[in-house]
Amino acid sequence: MKVLTVTLNPALDRQIFIRNFQVNKLHRVASPDHMVLSPGGKGVNVSIALAKLGIPSIATGFLGGYMGRILIEELRKISNLITTNFVFIKDETRENIAIIDEENHTITEINSPGPSVEDKDLEHLYRRYSMSLSRVEAVVISGSIPECLRSEVYVKLVRMAKEKGVPVFMETRDRHIKVLYEEDSLPLVVKPDFRAEYQLLGREISKVDEFVEAGKELIKRGSELVVMSYQVDKDIIVTENGAWLVRPKCEVDVSHVLGTGDTYVAGMVYKFLSGERDMFEIAKFGYVAALSKTKKAKKELPTLQEIEEFMDKFVVERVV
Amino acid sequence: MKVLTVTLNPALDRQIFIRNFQVNKLHRVASPDHMVLSPGGKGVNVSIALAKLGIPSIATGFLGGYMGRILIEELRKISNLITTNFVFIKDETRENIAIIDEENHTITEINSPGPSVEDKDLEHLYRRYSMSLSRVEAVVISGSIPECLRSEVYVKLVRMAKEKGVPVFMETRDRHIKVLYEEDSLPLVVKPDFRAEYQLLGREISKVDEFVEAGKELIKRGSELVVMSYQVDKDIIVTENGAWLVRPKCEVDVSHVLGTGDTYVAGMVYKFLSGERDMFEIAKFGYVAALSKTKKAKKELPTLQEIEEFMDKFVVERVV
Repeated sequence: MKVLTVTLNPALDRQIFIRNFQVNKLHRVASPDHMVLSPGGKGVNVSIALAKLGIPSIATGFLGGYMGRILIEELRKISNLITTNFVFIKDETRENIAIIDEENHTITEINSPGPSVEDKDLEHLYRRYSMSLSRVEAVVISGSIPECLRSEVYVKLVRMAKEKGVPVFMETRDRHIKVLYEEDSLPLVVKPDFRAEYQLLGREISKVDEFVEAGKELIKRGSELVVMSYQVDKDIIVTENGAWLVRPKCEVDVSHVLGTGDTYVAGMVYKFLSGERDMFEIAKFGYVAALSKTKKAKKELPTLQEIEEFMDKFVVERVV
Repeated sequence: MKVLTVTLNPALDRQIFIRNFQVNKLHRVASPDHMVLSPGGKGVNVSIALAKLGIPSIATGFLGGYMGRILIEELRKISNLITTNFVFIKDETRENIAIIDEENHTITEINSPGPSVEDKDLEHLYRRYSMSLSRVEAVVISGSIPECLRSEVYVKLVRMAKEKGVPVFMETRDRHIKVLYEEDSLPLVVKPDFRAEYQLLGREISKVDEFVEAGKELIKRGSELVVMSYQVDKDIIVTENGAWLVRPKCEVDVSHVLGTGDTYVAGMVYKFLSGERDMFEIAKFGYVAALSKTKKAKKELPTLQEIEEFMDKFVVERVV
């Protein structure tokens, strides 16, 4: 096993395709392939992207109820390079239903509430995490935390990995990054999830300078690489050696950029596992992986060959 | 075991409560109890209603996929008086999602397609059905047939029961009743399901005379009791001894009448099992059971005591 991915709040993603979807009407789904089920949650998605690159991983976190069982079965179908090691809880795993109307171009979404996680479940997770840590070369901690838990869970997970000398790659919202910063427990690689808001260390950021400034603070406190999405298809990379702006040469379909973050993380982990230790090179490979993902359909992931075709399709500019 | 219920096309019913539901918006479900799962399909519902009356039953039919497994688990939770004996198939059991907006009073429904049933599955069902027949005193065959199958399945099931001398209670649409009539294979008790259209033996019916006429034809061909819903809360009962119109003394909430059909069937079966052989008395008890159901919340069923409280709350008028 090479990688451990942690998803504390996974979701079962469901897409239902209905033409001319309207409120207060009865709709019949035309055929079984108009209802698509797939495992979701950022850590789980990284495991899937890694499997596409031939990298075996252990996926852990919390799963529960009917939705949890469907998720784990669907995940096992995707690749035998993914080993599941989830803690089973009483409550239902999140179910995210998207009703897609391709005629009127609407997406109506219904997201179920996240589960409650009891103290004994959390202790159980720490034990499994600790055991898995000794079997892997890298940890990915990605996504949100169930509402009943606090950011301190991430602090503990990062510290446990550090104690065993296992590097952590993390993509999550500033709410948690800020706590990790304050608790002096930053992971090796930080990728803030800006989908909800452009904020880092509690500050609104919009100019390149502000991104670089915040990134540098994370580096000072122990991270070795900070990658930040900037203006949709551009990225800002900060290491102890400087800061860079990366942008594609080719035009990118903006609607395809969403959801490339998990491929980005998988790309970085892949490069790290191949022996690369220059953090800038690791970031660039993640960026290229994400760029190649923008050319794929929503649920499809790039192969290594497809990523390599994009190696010369971006421009780097040093900003500091 | 007392009763065998057959549901060829069961469904997992899901109610999702969302205030101010709108197309093209993201909705978060407020709490887990705003998402309700329950087993559905007419035969399954009769088993549940019988269990409430203390009558054990075997539920059979086809179940498949994730939805089938959720349905069977939820059914087992409801009562240990229900023994499940379904044939498992490859395709997903139907899932009927109702998005209920109590603020704007809308119900938006999404019904998934029914499964395909292969020949070997059908043969498997006939074998299980045949074995169960020798263990029961009555059979209930209720509801629709998966689209890939023809009405001849019902002909065969009724004939098999008749050969073993087991009486059949059936509620289904005219499409199937007409074939049973033509094939001279009518069950003991017929309750046409008029929810989609008021039609019997291929003819539109609206006047009392027309109901009675069609009912008599079914009696002539071998049924002993025909019960027909007429103008929402009234019923027409036809036996070899005559025809009656039954109506409630009290006012009935019309919106509560839908879905009382399964309680009606359970009531008739209950009366039959108690030794009653006067078909008019059997029909009246079914009517009273349905009447008491109209006073209950959507998914709640009446107890025997609650049914008996309605014994004097209806009026019978002989029409022939």
